[in-house]
Amino acid sequence: MPVPSEIARILGTEGDVRVDFIESEALAKNPLGDPSTRAVAVYLPPEYDAQSSRRYPTLYVLHGYTGNVGALISSRPWETNVLQWADQLVRTRRMEPAIVVLVDGFTRLGGSQYVDSVHNGKYATYTVRDVVGHVDANYRTIPTEGGRAVLGKSSGGFGAMHLVLEHPGIFSAFASHSGDSYFRYAHFPAFATVHRMLEAHRFDLRAFVEAFEAKQKRGMPEYTTMEMLAYAAAYSPAGAAAFDIDLPFDRETGEVRNDVFERWLAFDPAERVSSHRSELARLRLRYLDCGRRDEYNLDIGARVVTRRIKDLGLTVRHEEFDDDHRNVGYRYEVSMPALVEVLDKE
Amino acid sequence: MPVPSEIARILGTEGDVRVDFIESEALAKNPLGDPSTRAVAVYLPPEYDAQSSRRYPTLYVLHGYTGNVGALISSRPWETNVLQWADQLVRTRRMEPAIVVLVDGFTRLGGSQYVDSVHNGKYATYTVRDVVGHVDANYRTIPTEGGRAVLGKSSGGFGAMHLVLEHPGIFSAFASHSGDSYFRYAHFPAFATVHRMLEAHRFDLRAFVEAFEAKQKRGMPEYTTMEMLAYAAAYSPAGAAAFDIDLPFDRETGEVRNDVFERWLAFDPAERVSSHRSELARLRLRYLDCGRRDEYNLDIGARVVTRRIKDLGLTVRHEEFDDDHRNVGYRYEVSMPALVEVLDKE
Amino acid sequence: MPVPSEIARILGTEGDVRVDFIESEALAKNPLGDPSTRAVAVYLPPEYDAQSSRRYPTLYVLHGYTGNVGALISSRPWETNVLQWADQLVRTRRMEPAIVVLVDGFTRLGGSQYVDSVHNGKYATYTVRDVVGHVDANYRTIPTEGGRAVLGKSSGGFGAMHLVLEHPGIFSAFASHSGDSYFRYAHFPAFATVHRMLEAHRFDLRAFVEAFEAKQKRGMPEYTTMEMLAYAAAYSPAGAAAFDIDLPFDRETGEVRNDVFERWLAFDPAERVSSHRSELARLRLRYLDCGRRDEYNLDIGARVVTRRIKDLGLTVRHEEFDDDHRNVGYRYEVSMPALVEVLDKE
Amino acid sequence: MPVPSEIARILGTEGDVRVDFIESEALAKNPLGDPSTRAVAVYLPPEYDAQSSRRYPTLYVLHGYTGNVGALISSRPWETNVLQWADQLVRTRRMEPAIVVLVDGFTRLGGSQYVDSVHNGKYATYTVRDVVGHVDANYRTIPTEGGRAVLGKSSGGFGAMHLVLEHPGIFSAFASHSGDSYFRYAHFPAFATVHRMLEAHRFDLRAFVEAFEAKQKRGMPEYTTMEMLAYAAAYSPAGAAAFDIDLPFDRETGEVRNDVFERWLAFDPAERVSSHRSELARLRLRYLDCGRRDEYNLDIGARVVTRRIKDLGLTVRHEEFDDDHRNVGYRYEVSMPALVEVLDKE
Repeated sequence: MPVPSEIARILGTEGDVRVDFIESEALAKNPLGDPSTRAVAVYLPPEYDAQSSRRYPTLYVLHGYTGNVGALISSRPWETNVLQWADQLVRTRRMEPAIVVLVDGFTRLGGSQYVDSVHNGKYATYTVRDVVGHVDANYRTIPTEGGRAVLGKSSGGFGAMHLVLEHPGIFSAFASHSGDSYFRYAHFPAFATVHRMLEAHRFDLRAFVEAFEAKQKRGMPEYTTMEMLAYAAAYSPAGAAAFDIDLPFDRETGEVRNDVFERWLAFDPAERVSSHRSELARLRLRYLDCGRRDEYNLDIGARVVTRRIKDLGLTVRHEEFDDDHRNVGYRYEVSMPALVEVLDKE
Repeated sequence: MPVPSEIARILGTEGDVRVDFIESEALAKNPLGDPSTRAVAVYLPPEYDAQSSRRYPTLYVLHGYTGNVGALISSRPWETNVLQWADQLVRTRRMEPAIVVLVDGFTRLGGSQYVDSVHNGKYATYTVRDVVGHVDANYRTIPTEGGRAVLGKSSGGFGAMHLVLEHPGIFSAFASHSGDSYFRYAHFPAFATVHRMLEAHRFDLRAFVEAFEAKQKRGMPEYTTMEMLAYAAAYSPAGAAAFDIDLPFDRETGEVRNDVFERWLAFDPAERVSSHRSELARLRLRYLDCGRRDEYNLDIGARVVTRRIKDLGLTVRHEEFDDDHRNVGYRYEVSMPALVEVLDKE
Repeated sequence: MPVPSEIARILGTEGDVRVDFIESEALAKNPLGDPSTRAVAVYLPPEYDAQSSRRYPTLYVLHGYTGNVGALISSRPWETNVLQWADQLVRTRRMEPAIVVLVDGFTRLGGSQYVDSVHNGKYATYTVRDVVGHVDANYRTIPTEGGRAVLGKSSGGFGAMHLVLEHPGIFSAFASHSGDSYFRYAHFPAFATVHRMLEAHRFDLRAFVEAFEAKQKRGMPEYTTMEMLAYAAAYSPAGAAAFDIDLPFDRETGEVRNDVFERWLAFDPAERVSSHRSELARLRLRYLDCGRRDEYNLDIGARVVTRRIKDLGLTVRHEEFDDDHRNVGYRYEVSMPALVEVLDKE
Repeated sequence: MPVPSEIARILGTEGDVRVDFIESEALAKNPLGDPSTRAVAVYLPPEYDAQSSRRYPTLYVLHGYTGNVGALISSRPWETNVLQWADQLVRTRRMEPAIVVLVDGFTRLGGSQYVDSVHNGKYATYTVRDVVGHVDANYRTIPTEGGRAVLGKSSGGFGAMHLVLEHPGIFSAFASHSGDSYFRYAHFPAFATVHRMLEAHRFDLRAFVEAFEAKQKRGMPEYTTMEMLAYAAAYSPAGAAAFDIDLPFDRETGEVRNDVFERWLAFDPAERVSSHRSELARLRLRYLDCGRRDEYNLDIGARVVTRRIKDLGLTVRHEEFDDDHRNVGYRYEVSMPALVEVLDKE
């Protein structure tokens, strides 16, 4: 019987947890200067090693904004992280055994939104090609569309929707927990805060970021500003150089710049699903949920996405619950078994 | 020497304070069922009675949302209300003697925005005709455009801008303190909250309002909902019956209804000033200020209004200060002398 | 039929409201320099003038910290102040007609706690002698112990308890709403905040107070500091000169000074009632209530006072409700009829 | 060159990080039922393996309430955990190479306070005997008092002070960051909250804890209640059975029970240091710091401890900084080099 990793012992999982470090070609020499070597955490179900030839369906988990693999596998007393949920579900036979992969989409600005950006690098390509390729090559996955699903929370939920729309054929199901959508309600209200903060830094984005990084503690407006810079870097980059970003508001007054915000909306699942029927139709499960007190109004976003997918004649599993945006990891208890159920098994 | 009113004694003003109750023809039989008898509070400068024939310029003060005349004349230790400011400014000779009038624009929904609405009644007409008429008839005002200015805070600032645009010839100057403008930032972000609240009341607006009124205490989302109903009643009424209001969002999903929101924007000073050059040009002073931490982003609104008025080739006095939306009454210290200065005097 | 006062019209009461200004002998030349002329507001039941010889029982209402008569009679839409409650209760015959008197106990430090203090002046004496004397002399009260009750909220509830313990024979019942008691929980936890604030002002109390007064806006720690200075001025004055006050904590470390805090506890109803059986026994009603989420833990205080009075073999009407410390004026609906019921009537 | 652990790679440390699982004799069959197998994380300086016989001074780090080893080694973008700080300090030569050990003091109630308790088990003994014994036996430490220091934040700071007072001869220096002390300000104010919460559970502690554990999310009062139960389990246990704990307040009224609270104070460093001169005198460094806005008033606590140690004729390094209680890990940058500096080196 193999020795479980230190991480698995700390997490208290019966299944093992491996952390690999891969060299991503897609992220090589990215303009923002983030590392192209990335951690990939892989949870293997308890029986994995004993049944030495069986292959397993695989769930790819995308973290939210400010997250990375280290944060996703972190554990805290009284809390259950995504791998602990997976392990608990498998151990109690509420979910069939599956491999669970944690993907690292962090950037210097706090997150890539898992999109290919001339400013950040190709995070969509990195995910669907480099990470999936590594996992299929090194673990006994079912290495086909039918064997893979993608899910995530917040920006990770956005990423899940983005990847199934942008790269059909990789995943056959997605789950978006409190995923970014309907940017008009989710992001637009933050622009005034960001305008004030950046004005105080004379709109020198590099100066703002360096000041942010140098601080031991930051206030909420600073985090909000960084977050909007990350979205702008993903949705409205200006060029292939760090901080060469178009902002979605006017520098002088702070009012919205519709020409830039339209570029954001081109990535908004709420605006986008209607024109992607074929990509959505090939999926076996379309799952969205959100707390009905979500601070970013993503409950409205999930409703809009759901409504528009249904208008295409497709089904959606859509759930709401009485909670806000934070610490809704317990929803994995619902989504992960549902995803695994529709995936191919051996 | 006349005996000062009890109110003046409680406020500690040297000038007297009268409260008249007028019967407004414009508000008679308004659909919402609010009283057409309204309090008008009138501050008279200390010398008023002694100099028995001199006439004075007049400032009309519009309260904000949830306010009324009773609230405006209320006093609290360590605070200075608008009449106490006026008195202090006159007594210390930082402002020339003026009459100050407090206008009551309250409705069952918390405020009329001082607009004529088929749902609420004619609050613009009531203000410029009934209130101004009463004051000119009963006090020694300078009863011409050159002798009057209008000002207010928050919804009162909006009202000030609305009245000079809608009823040119009544006032020759306005001051808007943290006045509603650029509704895209100011009101739009609240729609999700309102959608959730009204959904919980099955979109029965009367039921929501009656439940609100029956409570001893209400939470912030309940106040926000009432506020948006008040704005909808002013900007997007559906008919002349209580609660016959078009909501600016879709009932099922909560997403914005652009057809309705466009009707709101037709009242938005930020959208509107560009097409009202002549009404603005006749003013002797256009004054806007706002705290740069305004929770409703009205600092951005003030910048947009300022920018667009300047684009018309007109001047604006625009100031920002380091504060949020609440308790900015100390700005009267700046605006009132500036307004009185440009008005006609005897 | 007499014309109602402007104040009554603004409040919308059927009964009239008079505001008298009395010259208090007890407050003459008080060391803190507060005015000895004080407003006394008197609510008269609707029938008062018509039935020209009938005498009425009288309720004396004491405001809380930072309050005064002007604040107590202030009105706000959707809120019901104490006189509006009284009027509503009388009009709907849930309470027998009574006179209601609002007492002004404000000081430069925000409140006197209605105690005689060498530092502040004699606010207990002023209340039971000057205010009660004025009211009995000028209104058709039942001018005996059996015709009077005292009540208040927060510091006003404390004052009510203090006055019945300190001046037996004036009032025959009291009601304390969320009244200060069990100072160990109510005040003690604030000392650290106050220590930090005063250290930043080098323990120059005058400098702190003047800075406080000069500000347009103050933060919570500043209010808390002022509040504790007010309590120290009432409970642990050092001498008859402004700001000559003993603080209940050590200047260097901030730890409690037990010698001073013991002087505070000598005023604490929770510590004090046990030794005042005779003063309590002569009362016809002892009423305490408090929200069970009171931020100052005054629910515990009310329980302790209740327990200790009961241990004396006396009854207490004690109620708890699901609320915090603020805006609990709706409890007047319960207390005022209960008080009037036990008072003598004609 | 040895391969660094996955944990070290995720943390990005140059030095390696090992996680051992030890079987603690002291915790065997503890009444609360917590595991006696505990994780011990050990950071080894970068040069550790290369210089194969050199021995190093050792810092023992104690986590705060709700922490454990898993939480302490968790990493988050833009944050620096204690091992990342140690590594950074060593790499940049601001600290001489040292071994850093993370001790696990978690219990079902959220923390042991590192004291021997008849209710929880012997966490002091476990730390100084089992953990220190394991580390000295398995790593090239300087295995003497002169080679060891102990530090921690919040409850960990308390633990550091407790262990040097209770077990002289193990550590020759301590650092307490925002460590629990002066319980009168730190814990006493929470009793009212806890009383309310437990009353709602009819003072059935087990029922409360089980309800707490079953929830996906908990509010602040629930955490506060759990915290006070943890302290009571450490300071005022009633017997050797789970939940057999004396509460420091009266069940009926909520007022403090002095007999129980005195048992808490017997553990309070502020009350205790004065009688432990010899234990303190043998230390080479006594270090305390705290943010001057600490929500638990531990800044006052640190001042009191400092004052009383100085009164014994001993020196203290005492620092204050402008921050609150949370996320003050950056203070390790100050304390760790200071501790290592006074320890024996080879």
